[in-house]
Amino acid sequence: MEKVSWNVLTSTCPSRTSLARIANKWTAMIVIALSDGPLRFKDIHLTVQGISGKVLTDTLRALERDGIVSRRVYAEIPPRVEYQLTALGETLSTPLGVLRSWAEAHIEEVLEAREAYDLRS
Amino acid sequence: MEKVSWNVLTSTCPSRTSLARIANKWTAMIVIALSDGPLRFKDIHLTVQGISGKVLTDTLRALERDGIVSRRVYAEIPPRVEYQLTALGETLSTPLGVLRSWAEAHIEEVLEAREAYDLRS
Repeated sequence: MEKVSWNVLTSTCPSRTSLARIANKWTAMIVIALSDGPLRFKDIHLTVQGISGKVLTDTLRALERDGIVSRRVYAEIPPRVEYQLTALGETLSTPLGVLRSWAEAHIEEVLEAREAYDLRS
Repeated sequence: MEKVSWNVLTSTCPSRTSLARIANKWTAMIVIALSDGPLRFKDIHLTVQGISGKVLTDTLRALERDGIVSRRVYAEIPPRVEYQLTALGETLSTPLGVLRSWAEAHIEEVLEAREAYDLRS
C-alpha cells in the first residue's frame, strides 16, 4: 500500500485543517491555560482574558472534535463540567508554550520594528 | 525601574498582538516557505497553495511590520522583489516547523477523533 504523504502546504491536504486549528491564538491560550490541569468553563474564561463566551465555546468544541481537549460532566447538582487536555492535547503544551514565550520574549523588538515600519510608511 | 512583565493571557498586554501574528496558519506556512531562503511573491504564492493574493499581501505586510520578514527590492527591469526571514524571523522557523510536523504527524488521530465526535453529536 502506498504511504500517504501529508503536507500542510497542499491546499487540499487534511493536515492543513489541523494546522489551522493549532496555529491559532485562542487555541494556544486555551491549551496553555489547561496545561496546569482541568478547568471549568468559567475558569478558562477568567484565565484567557478578553475571550468572548462564544469564541471560547466554539474553540473548545473544535478542540474537543479534534481530540485535543476532553469534556467531562460530573453528576452533581448543579452539574460540574470540566475541560482537560487529552494525551494528544498534552503533546501541544510545549510547542504552543514556546510560541507564548516567543511572543513575550520578543515583544520589545516587535514593538520597535512596528514603530520603525510605521515611521517609514 | 520596575521590570515589565509581559503576559499573553492579559488581554491588554502588547505581547498578545504578537502571539496573534505568529499563532496563525498563514504566518506558519509563509515562515516555513521562507525557511529555505528568500522568495519572490509569486513563488511564495505557489508554495503556500490556496492562499489568496490579498491574504498573502496583508500577511507579508504584517510580518514585515513586526520585523519577522524583510522585503528587498532589486533595481532591475522589471524590478525584482524578494522576501526573506529576518534574524528575528529565523527564530520562528523551528517552533512553527514543529506545529507543521505536529499537524502532519497527528492528522490520522485527528481525523479519527473528528469522526467519533460527529457520530455522537
